[in-house]
Amino acid sequence: MTDQSVPTTAAGEATTARGEQTRQLILETAMRLFRERGYARTTMRAIAQEAGVAVGNAYYYFDSKERLIQEFYTRTEEEHRAAARPVLERETTFAGRLAGVLHAAIDVSTPSHDFAASVFKVAAEPTSPLSPFSPESSGPRQASIALFDEVLSGSTTKVDPELRPHLPELLWLAYMGIVLYWVYDRSPGQARTRALIDGAVPLIDRLVSLSRLRVLRPVTRQIVELLRTLRH
Amino acid sequence: MTDQSVPTTAAGEATTARGEQTRQLILETAMRLFRERGYARTTMRAIAQEAGVAVGNAYYYFDSKERLIQEFYTRTEEEHRAAARPVLERETTFAGRLAGVLHAAIDVSTPSHDFAASVFKVAAEPTSPLSPFSPESSGPRQASIALFDEVLSGSTTKVDPELRPHLPELLWLAYMGIVLYWVYDRSPGQARTRALIDGAVPLIDRLVSLSRLRVLRPVTRQIVELLRTLRH
Repeated sequence: MTDQSVPTTAAGEATTARGEQTRQLILETAMRLFRERGYARTTMRAIAQEAGVAVGNAYYYFDSKERLIQEFYTRTEEEHRAAARPVLERETTFAGRLAGVLHAAIDVSTPSHDFAASVFKVAAEPTSPLSPFSPESSGPRQASIALFDEVLSGSTTKVDPELRPHLPELLWLAYMGIVLYWVYDRSPGQARTRALIDGAVPLIDRLVSLSRLRVLRPVTRQIVELLRTLRH
Repeated sequence: MTDQSVPTTAAGEATTARGEQTRQLILETAMRLFRERGYARTTMRAIAQEAGVAVGNAYYYFDSKERLIQEFYTRTEEEHRAAARPVLERETTFAGRLAGVLHAAIDVSTPSHDFAASVFKVAAEPTSPLSPFSPESSGPRQASIALFDEVLSGSTTKVDPELRPHLPELLWLAYMGIVLYWVYDRSPGQARTRALIDGAVPLIDRLVSLSRLRVLRPVTRQIVELLRTLRH
């Protein structure tokens, strides 16, 4: 994306670096205003003004407020991946890796908790491009699913081979459920969300292990089938 | 509620009936305006004006817009229970009863689909009393959980006795998941939600039956424990 959106001239790298700086400044100003005034009440004009750039310049980098939020999603996902890295290098059990990756997501999202609530109000609109299920959110969604694939591939846990290709997406769905819970969580430091993760991980771990039992094969098939129905 | 909110005078029942009529008129007018203009943009003043009653009178029956939505929840839950009645009288299997009750919920909610999206936008605010998990929504929530209890108690399916007392609430949570999906469902006639119900019911049915297996006992315990953690 940076390649297409930052102008390259004879000045070359210097311009690119400056462009990246302006882009970053606009993004950070927007996040601050969204937090302070709410998403709906913040205009692109106000963002440009506060950042000290021309409105046209702001639109050059982000063609809509939605695009700013998409960028926020992308950056959060990148921070999440970076925060998950030491966990994935250290932990070898599926439960350890999953718990670490989920807690890392909450770690990086904590400063944005109030902001998340105000975005969620907009993302909850059925046709919103800000929904994590929208085509527009496909980049960070796929990157996030890939992270859950890594949780599995680096672990010692054996998984039913029929379930394996679908499990990263199922884990991502569970993660979305946890994020939904976190948005609503008013407990100090979102302690309830931490408790939810600590309770849900051993449960998921056990279910994944049990998925290899013959008696549970039909359950796996039904889940995979249901996922297929809902995707098309 | 009606006892406290409708004035009783010497005229007795006539006044009560007239009060109930006014209450009904205000509620129906509000629902229409919420649908036409959106929840946020509709004021109590506008509702009173359209209903042809004094603003003070409107506030007498409903002390806030939220109260009007709570009333809408209560009525929808009552309609749901009425629509589920023939199913519960006819079906004896757990799967048949559960599918019937879930489809009945969609049947009665279909006319409110657009309206539900606009309410959801407000209910998605973490501290909103309109959330189905809020103390304010406890009446319709408990009534709905009781309906799922009836789905179980009238069925021929045997359930793990340790799971049984928690199952109505778990089914209600699954139902809330389906409602969330339905709010976002833009397919014609919400056909995808119907497909979700038809796919999820056999899966839930199988899991409930399997809950009696010894190997799955620890899973049940973990679920019950997790539910307990999240409630407190």
